[in-house]
Amino acid sequence: MAVALDNNGRHQVVIIGGGFGGLYTAKHLAKANVNVTLIDKRNFHLFQPLLYQVATGTLSPADISSPLRAVFSKSKNTQVLLGEVNDIDPKAQQVIMGDKVIPYDTLIVATGANHSYFGKDNWKDLAPGLKTVEDAIEMRRRIFSAFEAAEKETDLEKRRALLTFVIVGGGPTGVELAGAIAELAYKTLKEDFRNIDTSEAKILLLQGADRVLPHISPDLSEVAAASLQKLGVIIQTNTRVTNIENNIVTFKQGDEVTAIASKTILWAAGVQGSPMAKVLAERTGVECDRSGRVIVEPDLTIKGYRNIFVVGDLGNFSHQDGKPLPGVAPVAKQQGEYVARLIQKRLQGQTLPAFHYNHVGSLAMIGQNLAIVDLGFLKLTGFLAWVFWLIVHIYFLIEFDTKLLVVFQWAWNYITRNRRSRLITGREAYVEAKTNNITQVAN
Amino acid sequence: MAVALDNNGRHQVVIIGGGFGGLYTAKHLAKANVNVTLIDKRNFHLFQPLLYQVATGTLSPADISSPLRAVFSKSKNTQVLLGEVNDIDPKAQQVIMGDKVIPYDTLIVATGANHSYFGKDNWKDLAPGLKTVEDAIEMRRRIFSAFEAAEKETDLEKRRALLTFVIVGGGPTGVELAGAIAELAYKTLKEDFRNIDTSEAKILLLQGADRVLPHISPDLSEVAAASLQKLGVIIQTNTRVTNIENNIVTFKQGDEVTAIASKTILWAAGVQGSPMAKVLAERTGVECDRSGRVIVEPDLTIKGYRNIFVVGDLGNFSHQDGKPLPGVAPVAKQQGEYVARLIQKRLQGQTLPAFHYNHVGSLAMIGQNLAIVDLGFLKLTGFLAWVFWLIVHIYFLIEFDTKLLVVFQWAWNYITRNRRSRLITGREAYVEAKTNNITQVAN
Repeated sequence: MAVALDNNGRHQVVIIGGGFGGLYTAKHLAKANVNVTLIDKRNFHLFQPLLYQVATGTLSPADISSPLRAVFSKSKNTQVLLGEVNDIDPKAQQVIMGDKVIPYDTLIVATGANHSYFGKDNWKDLAPGLKTVEDAIEMRRRIFSAFEAAEKETDLEKRRALLTFVIVGGGPTGVELAGAIAELAYKTLKEDFRNIDTSEAKILLLQGADRVLPHISPDLSEVAAASLQKLGVIIQTNTRVTNIENNIVTFKQGDEVTAIASKTILWAAGVQGSPMAKVLAERTGVECDRSGRVIVEPDLTIKGYRNIFVVGDLGNFSHQDGKPLPGVAPVAKQQGEYVARLIQKRLQGQTLPAFHYNHVGSLAMIGQNLAIVDLGFLKLTGFLAWVFWLIVHIYFLIEFDTKLLVVFQWAWNYITRNRRSRLITGREAYVEAKTNNITQVAN
Repeated sequence: MAVALDNNGRHQVVIIGGGFGGLYTAKHLAKANVNVTLIDKRNFHLFQPLLYQVATGTLSPADISSPLRAVFSKSKNTQVLLGEVNDIDPKAQQVIMGDKVIPYDTLIVATGANHSYFGKDNWKDLAPGLKTVEDAIEMRRRIFSAFEAAEKETDLEKRRALLTFVIVGGGPTGVELAGAIAELAYKTLKEDFRNIDTSEAKILLLQGADRVLPHISPDLSEVAAASLQKLGVIIQTNTRVTNIENNIVTFKQGDEVTAIASKTILWAAGVQGSPMAKVLAERTGVECDRSGRVIVEPDLTIKGYRNIFVVGDLGNFSHQDGKPLPGVAPVAKQQGEYVARLIQKRLQGQTLPAFHYNHVGSLAMIGQNLAIVDLGFLKLTGFLAWVFWLIVHIYFLIEFDTKLLVVFQWAWNYITRNRRSRLITGREAYVEAKTNNITQVAN
């Protein structure tokens, strides 16, 4: 179909979500003869893979964020809308935001996924996850406040609970958090306190599967585990958390049940498609998997709706090797680019072969000079992997104008081992400072 | 008096507040034969003069903060305590924090000052001030949310209120905020929106005195005003705010009363000594001035208490030319250093002449390539002053390991005119995104 240059005659593309999937779809449509509307609840795109570095005091939120309006400032065919989508009307081809409707010709849903608490949603406050800037600030507050509270605590048992950090989930986020907290406790903060020895801290990583980083090869996974243990992290695999209550986390390994007192329990487990999956299922009858992710067709559309695409973590794409693709940035980016190309092909009356994910490898940072790289044809560990991890992340931050900034902070952190972004901030921090006075003073 | 090397026999110095005054006292005692306890509600020192750059999206909080424990990590005679002081017992020489007491031989109170709402404390939420990281994040949220809401607003009158920014107070903070918001509206954000023209924004600076920056010479103050006006800021001097209600700010200039609708009213006026002044007054009988600042003796002690010092914004030191010294960083730093030297002299049975403030000049940043420098013997304006401002601030950030980082961001901001730290974050931002949906869509 020929497309008029007149705005109103143009093909209307609406994208819900400004994560990797939505951002890359919009970027690859920036020069296309379509109108693009990108809707997000937040005014910035977040480079989520580095969020754990905000939570542990290395980077600031703005270092890993890009204001969406700035990204699309020069793309005059693209408008950014701040707000939340409540509903979709696939018959009328409309997206509903409060009392307003936005018509679309093609809709891309890219609202991502959250952690899953496996039905125990009350654990959310007790063991916060790491998906948003607010999550990271809150996690940072809890981690650094725990050391502060331990410094003031005279009761040995309470002090032990304050210096016990439990991380639930042994995927990349859990591994990276555990490694970063171990470095904090055993290196960075070692000289900073007068009453406690931060190296007495206990860092426990609980993993449901039989090994950490189950998405990489078993030998590398073993190296990762050994590296974490060398850093001081206690790893427990085949372990399921059965209860979290009164700062006590209870978990089960086989028949063995353990309960441990910990003031800082962090959640990095499970995948749960965002609520938009339910909306899509209700309105279109599309099927979702057990994790609430939308089952997509080989071309990333949903069954029966040629003009509705789902990209990124929200989708379950199982056409490649029977297993769903992992919820990682490269999948979302490649899917976004694919959909942008398909839309343009279709406008020319053509089409594209099914989406194919080009696996780029898996990386995980464990600590200073310690990482794991699995490219399939190449496996790296230790210092070399660490350098590779840095280069890859710097490369992917290229689209962010913060690349040099991040490099600089990493370099500084490497030299000084200081975590300069370890601020305890937020409304809670403020209230806490005002109410919780110190409980002990010693020299 | 000879001082034993034994910890318990050492002279105990307690410092309340980790701002410029407290930090510099502690720093200059780091090698002294005394024990130092530095108490603060927050776990970081804040470089407040640059806080307006956080509020307007140029820098991140961590860029202008220094973790107190990191600053004193190597000063083994210094311990940092996180918490709030409730009371002081000058007879028993004790500081009270909740149910704990901390004994002192010498006490330094350096808890600073807040904005004064001149008795209208309910204005605080309607027109937030700029003293803490949380204040800056909240100001940033309000400023950028106002543009976002304007983008969605169809009602012209409401849109005008959203694009009207009123800054109360024409001192350095007010001037710098007004200049930064003008640059945002008229330059940085110009291309970012599709429905509004951000250059229609109105930025109003209300000043009680007869000129902006009344602490610098009248000719420079005039240049500052002219520069602000050239940037697009509307300045109204001799103006007093009489009411703030329902997003309408009412103000009086002579007999003329004006009411203007504005969704973003920012407060940068008045000085009010922190609550610790009242505690000191009650416990020691020391006099406070009308702004609630403690009247100090020529050696910065308080009347009748040779071992209690007040440094920085909390103090009113009027022994130099009859007027109280201004509440600026150089005064606090020089006072901190003086007190640290005096304590050491006294331990040797000696003393020091009265404190004398060595005036280092006044600076104010107005906008890109635009600043004001008044060194007394040298006055600069425009580009030269701007370069001078940068050099001075970079120099003073030397004690922060963030100096290069800030320089880099300024350089980047200068080249791109982007404000990369313009995140709308915080719990309120999150709730807002979830509830306030867009109210209009246009192309």
